[in-house]
Amino acid sequence: MQMPNPVMSIAELRTFIAKEFPQSVDDFPDLEVTRVDAGRVDLRMRALTRHLRPGGTVSGPTLFGLVDLAGYFCVLTHIGPEALSVTTNLNINFMRKADPGLLDVEARILKLGKRLMVFDASVTQSDADNIIAHATGTYAIPPRKQEG
Amino acid sequence: MQMPNPVMSIAELRTFIAKEFPQSVDDFPDLEVTRVDAGRVDLRMRALTRHLRPGGTVSGPTLFGLVDLAGYFCVLTHIGPEALSVTTNLNINFMRKADPGLLDVEARILKLGKRLMVFDASVTQSDADNIIAHATGTYAIPPRKQEG
Amino acid sequence: MQMPNPVMSIAELRTFIAKEFPQSVDDFPDLEVTRVDAGRVDLRMRALTRHLRPGGTVSGPTLFGLVDLAGYFCVLTHIGPEALSVTTNLNINFMRKADPGLLDVEARILKLGKRLMVFDASVTQSDADNIIAHATGTYAIPPRKQEG
Amino acid sequence: MQMPNPVMSIAELRTFIAKEFPQSVDDFPDLEVTRVDAGRVDLRMRALTRHLRPGGTVSGPTLFGLVDLAGYFCVLTHIGPEALSVTTNLNINFMRKADPGLLDVEARILKLGKRLMVFDASVTQSDADNIIAHATGTYAIPPRKQEG
Repeated sequence: MQMPNPVMSIAELRTFIAKEFPQSVDDFPDLEVTRVDAGRVDLRMRALTRHLRPGGTVSGPTLFGLVDLAGYFCVLTHIGPEALSVTTNLNINFMRKADPGLLDVEARILKLGKRLMVFDASVTQSDADNIIAHATGTYAIPPRKQEG
Repeated sequence: MQMPNPVMSIAELRTFIAKEFPQSVDDFPDLEVTRVDAGRVDLRMRALTRHLRPGGTVSGPTLFGLVDLAGYFCVLTHIGPEALSVTTNLNINFMRKADPGLLDVEARILKLGKRLMVFDASVTQSDADNIIAHATGTYAIPPRKQEG
Repeated sequence: MQMPNPVMSIAELRTFIAKEFPQSVDDFPDLEVTRVDAGRVDLRMRALTRHLRPGGTVSGPTLFGLVDLAGYFCVLTHIGPEALSVTTNLNINFMRKADPGLLDVEARILKLGKRLMVFDASVTQSDADNIIAHATGTYAIPPRKQEG
Repeated sequence: MQMPNPVMSIAELRTFIAKEFPQSVDDFPDLEVTRVDAGRVDLRMRALTRHLRPGGTVSGPTLFGLVDLAGYFCVLTHIGPEALSVTTNLNINFMRKADPGLLDVEARILKLGKRLMVFDASVTQSDADNIIAHATGTYAIPPRKQEG
């Protein structure tokens, strides 16, 4: 698949997150951007006690928040930091229980249009390769100022 | 639509939540069960500062957690508290920005099978009637012991 | 929920379908528009042999086509016939087997924005009230000429 | 990702389709199974006039039917031909218009459990590599006889 080129590097995304998006650091304290590439953003987080459901597995809202954030970083790195894009749809399948510890997310842009960005994202436990959760989502991209 | 009858009353659900499910009270401190009926569970929560995204709107993971919880209470009230059902799929559309304050969720069972429960849920701002978010989800119901 | 008012009546929609949209009549020969109302379009079709899967139940693509068409008629009756809107996302849950015969679809607009229309739709067997299939979908509405 | 091994070869799937599943040949006359591998089934079809919408693009129900069929073949090749599995959920994003001609589908098993099989599928125009449609779906696998 042809992938659009990013307009932000991995270093620029890390700087942006630290300065402008501190709440993602609050939600996911050890969040690491592990890859920014054409049509692609990968993240790694550490699932802590507060991310767990009774029974000790990572909660649905944590996994939802993680894939949604990966999708947001897809828009951000490929459109630039001006646009205030918002999630319009997210479909998530939960496939296996996730244990505490490191989780990897691979997010991939399926379409980067003028008005919509569609992505999918897979979450795996970092020391295994079974998919824990898989999501597909859409972000609405606001019209650029010059368009109006 | 024919709706299955609940096996727990609204009072029994409130007692169950307080005793067995305190983390839902942690996530949503003012959570109130406002209705338990045939095929139906309604909830009300208060969106506080910690539920907000920058810009002051209720976050996606908060809305996800809320509709997922409403789905869980649908299974619980209609199957009983033994079954440890888990979300397998959740599809959510975000339609309008949600302001801090009271949010209402109406959840409805679309199918209650032996192995799967399908529901949908609408979230509205309590003083308005526009839908903020709408979700459809599936819970897997584990086999009963006597089945094996 | 506040529902937007339609700009086409049920009679106007029927005329439009007959003149401009004959392929919907080919796919669903006995298609009947049974309701056009604020935020609402209902349809009735007759499932024939060619709509069935082996085993005699109505096929997934038939149910998909039917709910997608109901969504299209939601846009059409509430925006007008100029706009060439297209489906961007459709999520469908199949809940029960559908027998040949009459099927009813109730479609409801959840959001009518400038750029996106979100709807849900339920399919029931006309002589019963269990939901056979439930879908949520999004149509992208193209920019009006005067906007550019 | 660890992928389950198929229990049918590509030749066995082709024979099975010809003998037991002729209606897929009716719907998609030039359907070709191009790959059966661990956790993977690829198909190729030719979009003809009857698969097109006005405007000359491949219709939504055609693309839905194609990805649903690819998911069915995932179950079939990895569980065996006895099980009468059924689609319970399918979420599809339409990303680009598809022209008449050859379409390729790549379907991948995300989870193969005892009761549910989750897959995703991407459709591309055979001479290009942009994704036209992407779907995620779930098949319910009936209990084996010896289980009961």
